[in-house]
Amino acid sequence: MQKLAIGMFDSGVGGITVLKEVKKLLPHEHIIYFGDTARVPYGNKSPRMVTKYALESALFLLTKGIKLLIIACNTSSAFALGILQKKMPIPVVGVISPGSKEAVAHTRVKKIGVIGTRTTIKSMAYDRSIKKLDPDIQVFSKACPLFVPIVEEGLEHDEVARLMAEKYLKGLKRSGIDVLVMGCTHYPVLEYVIKETLGKGVEIVHSGKETAKEAQEILGRKDLINKRGRGKCEYFVTDAPESFKEMGGRILGEPLTLVRSPGNLDYKDILFSS
Amino acid sequence: MQKLAIGMFDSGVGGITVLKEVKKLLPHEHIIYFGDTARVPYGNKSPRMVTKYALESALFLLTKGIKLLIIACNTSSAFALGILQKKMPIPVVGVISPGSKEAVAHTRVKKIGVIGTRTTIKSMAYDRSIKKLDPDIQVFSKACPLFVPIVEEGLEHDEVARLMAEKYLKGLKRSGIDVLVMGCTHYPVLEYVIKETLGKGVEIVHSGKETAKEAQEILGRKDLINKRGRGKCEYFVTDAPESFKEMGGRILGEPLTLVRSPGNLDYKDILFSS
Repeated sequence: MQKLAIGMFDSGVGGITVLKEVKKLLPHEHIIYFGDTARVPYGNKSPRMVTKYALESALFLLTKGIKLLIIACNTSSAFALGILQKKMPIPVVGVISPGSKEAVAHTRVKKIGVIGTRTTIKSMAYDRSIKKLDPDIQVFSKACPLFVPIVEEGLEHDEVARLMAEKYLKGLKRSGIDVLVMGCTHYPVLEYVIKETLGKGVEIVHSGKETAKEAQEILGRKDLINKRGRGKCEYFVTDAPESFKEMGGRILGEPLTLVRSPGNLDYKDILFSS
Repeated sequence: MQKLAIGMFDSGVGGITVLKEVKKLLPHEHIIYFGDTARVPYGNKSPRMVTKYALESALFLLTKGIKLLIIACNTSSAFALGILQKKMPIPVVGVISPGSKEAVAHTRVKKIGVIGTRTTIKSMAYDRSIKKLDPDIQVFSKACPLFVPIVEEGLEHDEVARLMAEKYLKGLKRSGIDVLVMGCTHYPVLEYVIKETLGKGVEIVHSGKETAKEAQEILGRKDLINKRGRGKCEYFVTDAPESFKEMGGRILGEPLTLVRSPGNLDYKDILFSS
């Protein structure tokens, strides 16, 4: 069982910001990453569609033999965590509760900002998760729908990133938050410009690190940590691998070597092939 | 046969810019529009995936009983027109050849600019189509990947639209074009800002009007034009209908009344239900 992999999925390449942290904390683990690049993005799709896609991704990873599933996507975590925890025979970790925990630990003024996709923000999942930890905390949230395409297009150092950061974050800045949760796994790529826009008084939190800690803790408790050998990362994507490889490599800081993509036209075949 | 509908498909809401022109020119026709909102956008997906999605959309429309199919999406037209013309038992019209025809008719300096999604521009479909009409014309093209999310987010009057238009169109402006083809059915929504950015010397062409003319001509030739009654438009989308309805209504300039969306979670069921 210790030799089994950790499975992770995201709509596309953003979840690699989470994978990076898991890899740091659990260097001996094999990781199988599933990126649904044929249907990316999820952030403006309906809860029902996001749930359906999450079930399909989880099912695919399950057929690979995994000991733990990480939902490395905030939108999917917001809607599918409950059903996946109920239906899967292994532990399932989302990114919203770890991100909330970290935010709550850092706020002094009890005002937390949350940014995410349209669907994630609408779900109020962070509001609920944060208030469960501390009902006195005020949550200010803002959907930033253009951030994902900006990251996917590699425009994080472009003027457009700064312009949109100013637009999206203006209200949050005014509200007096001292912690901002990046509630989308794409956003850490924009950390620099977000930090600059908000100024020094606001701490930026993303769920990657806390999610990795939660994964480590669960595996530790069940004595499932792989303690030997060098872990390898394997990637499956539902569309052609080129741009995923390029962008993913940039996020991870090293090339993605094992990226596999559909050998045929039918999504179902990808889903159930070995 | 005259009573049968015209079928149209697009990745999402953009094709409504084409539907609008068809409706103007052929007011008695029933139109069935299919928007693949569960998998939008197409513009940065692979040719193979775009082709697969086009086949599925066409198949769905075929089951509705249509006399003509319009591919109201440039990315799909670039890759799937040939195979659909071969496989479908009815005439199939794309948007690239009509757009090219209009551009060629308007250029005096024989320099045409083309803007589109990453995948459309990479396909060189406009270059080929324009040069087939006049090999002496120079084509300058530029992918504008952020334009679709800007339109989908309703940001066409925002500063970000102007900023990106300036960035994307700078080179085209310098190249001395006198005609610009909007090679994506979303872009007409940005016509105002594109026009302002390029200045008076450049005529903006989009394929909607010419595509409608081509549809009219084909139906006329086959005596398939519906000459009586008020045509109705019916819409099918693969994800929840709310934002499609809102945006689509804005583009069309009147509310979309008949929008149907999946009653269940399986895409295949939508595809083959009556």
